[in-house]
Amino acid sequence: MLRVVLSASFRSVVAQHDVVRIAGAHDALGAVLAQEAGFPAVWSSSLEVSAARCLPDASLLSMTEYLVAAATMQNAVSVPVVADCDTGYGNNLNVAHMVHAYEAAGITAVCMEDKVFPKINSFARADHSLLDTKVFARKVEVAKNAQQSPEFFVIARTEALISGQDVAEAVHRCSAYADAGADAVLVHSKSRTNEQILRFLDKWSGAVPVVVVPTTYPDWSAQDAGAAGVSVIIYANQGLRATVTSLREAYRAIYQQGRSTELEGRIVDIQEIFRLQRLDEWKALER
Amino acid sequence: MLRVVLSASFRSVVAQHDVVRIAGAHDALGAVLAQEAGFPAVWSSSLEVSAARCLPDASLLSMTEYLVAAATMQNAVSVPVVADCDTGYGNNLNVAHMVHAYEAAGITAVCMEDKVFPKINSFARADHSLLDTKVFARKVEVAKNAQQSPEFFVIARTEALISGQDVAEAVHRCSAYADAGADAVLVHSKSRTNEQILRFLDKWSGAVPVVVVPTTYPDWSAQDAGAAGVSVIIYANQGLRATVTSLREAYRAIYQQGRSTELEGRIVDIQEIFRLQRLDEWKALER
Amino acid sequence: MLRVVLSASFRSVVAQHDVVRIAGAHDALGAVLAQEAGFPAVWSSSLEVSAARCLPDASLLSMTEYLVAAATMQNAVSVPVVADCDTGYGNNLNVAHMVHAYEAAGITAVCMEDKVFPKINSFARADHSLLDTKVFARKVEVAKNAQQSPEFFVIARTEALISGQDVAEAVHRCSAYADAGADAVLVHSKSRTNEQILRFLDKWSGAVPVVVVPTTYPDWSAQDAGAAGVSVIIYANQGLRATVTSLREAYRAIYQQGRSTELEGRIVDIQEIFRLQRLDEWKALER
Amino acid sequence: MLRVVLSASFRSVVAQHDVVRIAGAHDALGAVLAQEAGFPAVWSSSLEVSAARCLPDASLLSMTEYLVAAATMQNAVSVPVVADCDTGYGNNLNVAHMVHAYEAAGITAVCMEDKVFPKINSFARADHSLLDTKVFARKVEVAKNAQQSPEFFVIARTEALISGQDVAEAVHRCSAYADAGADAVLVHSKSRTNEQILRFLDKWSGAVPVVVVPTTYPDWSAQDAGAAGVSVIIYANQGLRATVTSLREAYRAIYQQGRSTELEGRIVDIQEIFRLQRLDEWKALER
Repeated sequence: MLRVVLSASFRSVVAQHDVVRIAGAHDALGAVLAQEAGFPAVWSSSLEVSAARCLPDASLLSMTEYLVAAATMQNAVSVPVVADCDTGYGNNLNVAHMVHAYEAAGITAVCMEDKVFPKINSFARADHSLLDTKVFARKVEVAKNAQQSPEFFVIARTEALISGQDVAEAVHRCSAYADAGADAVLVHSKSRTNEQILRFLDKWSGAVPVVVVPTTYPDWSAQDAGAAGVSVIIYANQGLRATVTSLREAYRAIYQQGRSTELEGRIVDIQEIFRLQRLDEWKALER
Repeated sequence: MLRVVLSASFRSVVAQHDVVRIAGAHDALGAVLAQEAGFPAVWSSSLEVSAARCLPDASLLSMTEYLVAAATMQNAVSVPVVADCDTGYGNNLNVAHMVHAYEAAGITAVCMEDKVFPKINSFARADHSLLDTKVFARKVEVAKNAQQSPEFFVIARTEALISGQDVAEAVHRCSAYADAGADAVLVHSKSRTNEQILRFLDKWSGAVPVVVVPTTYPDWSAQDAGAAGVSVIIYANQGLRATVTSLREAYRAIYQQGRSTELEGRIVDIQEIFRLQRLDEWKALER
Repeated sequence: MLRVVLSASFRSVVAQHDVVRIAGAHDALGAVLAQEAGFPAVWSSSLEVSAARCLPDASLLSMTEYLVAAATMQNAVSVPVVADCDTGYGNNLNVAHMVHAYEAAGITAVCMEDKVFPKINSFARADHSLLDTKVFARKVEVAKNAQQSPEFFVIARTEALISGQDVAEAVHRCSAYADAGADAVLVHSKSRTNEQILRFLDKWSGAVPVVVVPTTYPDWSAQDAGAAGVSVIIYANQGLRATVTSLREAYRAIYQQGRSTELEGRIVDIQEIFRLQRLDEWKALER
Repeated sequence: MLRVVLSASFRSVVAQHDVVRIAGAHDALGAVLAQEAGFPAVWSSSLEVSAARCLPDASLLSMTEYLVAAATMQNAVSVPVVADCDTGYGNNLNVAHMVHAYEAAGITAVCMEDKVFPKINSFARADHSLLDTKVFARKVEVAKNAQQSPEFFVIARTEALISGQDVAEAVHRCSAYADAGADAVLVHSKSRTNEQILRFLDKWSGAVPVVVVPTTYPDWSAQDAGAAGVSVIIYANQGLRATVTSLREAYRAIYQQGRSTELEGRIVDIQEIFRLQRLDEWKALER
């Protein structure tokens, strides 16, 4: 009998792994493929979700749209979805509303960052102004007070390094956020090496787990990161980037060759699509 | 200055091409990549949209969800989106409501098929019962009466061959649908060759243009199909299938290698994502 | 501290009352006012939700739209929302999908009826064809198998009397639905008296609770209905009808008098709107 | 034959009236009743839309939710809907995105105000900080540049008086907004009399039309306001307040009396609901 599988909470996944690796996605199909590849959690990436609409990752899509994306993913997988919630979509009231909405939708973990709303993607050459530390710590506190279940997990992300602040400031901010109740801290870096992160880890108290996003320093292995003190690693956008490459090639091939024959051997067949749609399980309902 | 580009109507695209080639997609990103590859129209595919949610293509997603998908694509491209509207989501009233809604959302062409609601994907081993010919012809008439603009384009699709009927029945049905006002007819086949379609074309009056979907007979070139009398060719799901292949490989590579380095050279970089998001144009608003 | 209050399940409400009285609504505001008036449950009425859009209650709105309406109400109240789910939006697969979706959204009870999709409102002069009894019993079975929590409650509604069948047929159908696992049966009547319902109750086995909707026989008191064997009474659309009356009067008064002064004393003030929005509780988050 | 009626643009309505009176609403039913009462335009009120969800009017609902509400109203009426867009949902980029989205949805006029995002309702005792004049003027400019059609109409609203600034500041701001391209200015006041507004009008250049919202000074007639120089009057929330009063009374009556009989004579009947749903026109599609 077909059933929606209840997902594990992200908190339980963190408890069960030395290093949790998370794959970014923007729809249920990506989430299922990430789960099938072995990832114990999925990142509902703002960059991916906005790119799927060809709109900048700049607080243009609404909380409604990001929430639908995250919830649609969560409904399709049994691993937890960690929702990238940008700045929390505004101030304290927006943060409380966000937690109410995401928790009601079955999401067990959210991440919010200490930039000013509206934010812009961390890798864009743009202004990345930070909120005052106390103001953001209060947002973390509001989020934690708004949650219903003790399982709910709030990741506080500092953009200190992205905005040009130093490692000491990143540590200072993350400490304040942990004091405010954050269940983990994410320290983001756009450096081409892991050097900033290593210095952060060196100074980090260990109060709560540390999350990293090695987009610009991809050669740091999960094993090495774990040994250095990282608890969670998010591979945030590689799936999207692979999709663009393959979709472009597929469309070009069909257009230029005037037919899809040459492509056929290199792409999955319709039966594999049916399997991912769980068609046989659904059809069993029509005995 | 950034502007939403108003799209061409599908009717105008048909008028300007001997053979219109359409690429299937399920989100704005796919639609933009199809447009960039040269396709003059995009197919908002029910199979793709439902597969993106890991749900069967079996009338499970609602009209709301299919419409949001189609409209999101249309808002991102200047070529027209042709919306796969399954059975029209019910009977005559549903069809009228569908046309009101799709036209209001800026969609200039829809396709609906003569199967009983709820339908199941044509390639699934399942019951593919057809509506009575007159009942479906009336749905076509209702759709045409519901449209506001003379530009709106309704494709009537027969599943006669899919359901095991013969070519004569397919011709009979398409003639009735053209008489009822359809702007084009789509004759679908799951045969491994184009032989059924060739026999259809041989008997077709030419009253309105013929649309085909060569998923199972991919070696038929657009040029040859055009020469045989086909006016529109839909490459309905190859983009989705390419996406599954590449996403699976990307996730596996990262998971198995413990880092994303090896993948980096084979996927587009973040700057290309920014370009697809039109980030520079948007940033120009913040002078 | 502001918190979303977790709602009671409808099953627990049925267990705690001899007769459960439910008020129809179409938005969160109506649901809150019904709760404040004392009703221990709210009916997310298809007639109300479709009328709020000025569209017929004829399966035109999608499951997505009905679900959003029901979930929005549920998020605002601590009493359970019982969702009017028409025919279950299609066949067995649609029913399973519906149960997955409603349960995931926090709804603890749904009602579905044994008419053919697309249905039309029971009080409309129109065709009210019934599904075959076994086919609908199977839909009930599918719904019960699809639920995750034992708390979830499925009401099977027969339109036998609406479609011109007799009381014996209504009893026969309800028995079959109870055998299939329905948690309660709803027997609908458009008679101007409660006579049909009384005859039904006289023949009913008592296998599961009986639900009635006394729209056309409003003089039957809850107390009398309870004494006659009714367990649940739905006042399905009176709120909507009161709204139309008062909105029309308000708009006419302002338009004809050229100002709103005369209306002021007869309508609540802005502070009462703020109270219903729980503004003070929200503002407390901004210490 | 049933058709969606294309609406007049708000610009054309302004051109045709000395004083345009607009009624606030939050759903299609309210919009239709306002139109039936004679109003030539409808205000999609943020206060009403948020109150319908029992959430504060404090930038908690997303643009998606406000847009769906406005578009749903617009689809039901032939008079134009003027969309209350709060602060424009963020900064310049959000404003451009808003204009793209509202115009694509068929809305012909929007209003945005010069408070800092997230805003709170003007009648709430709260911080009502204003954006810098030049920053908001730039938002107006961005909105005007983002529109496709010359018909689109942007109302710039100053909250200067709400925030405790004087009339001179309100005039200064409105002048800057008119210079930036605003098609009209709205000067909001929470004074118990029209005295502030009269002083504003006395100093106003007349560059563009002036819009007022006489919620707190309801005794000022449209005729007198027009004579004083007002071009547009929004009765923003009286419909909502009348709805609360009548819904509360209806629910209480049913609950306390144990039946709905006593209510029946005071509320419209089901046939009137069917008329508002245009049921007969829809049924005509099923010949």
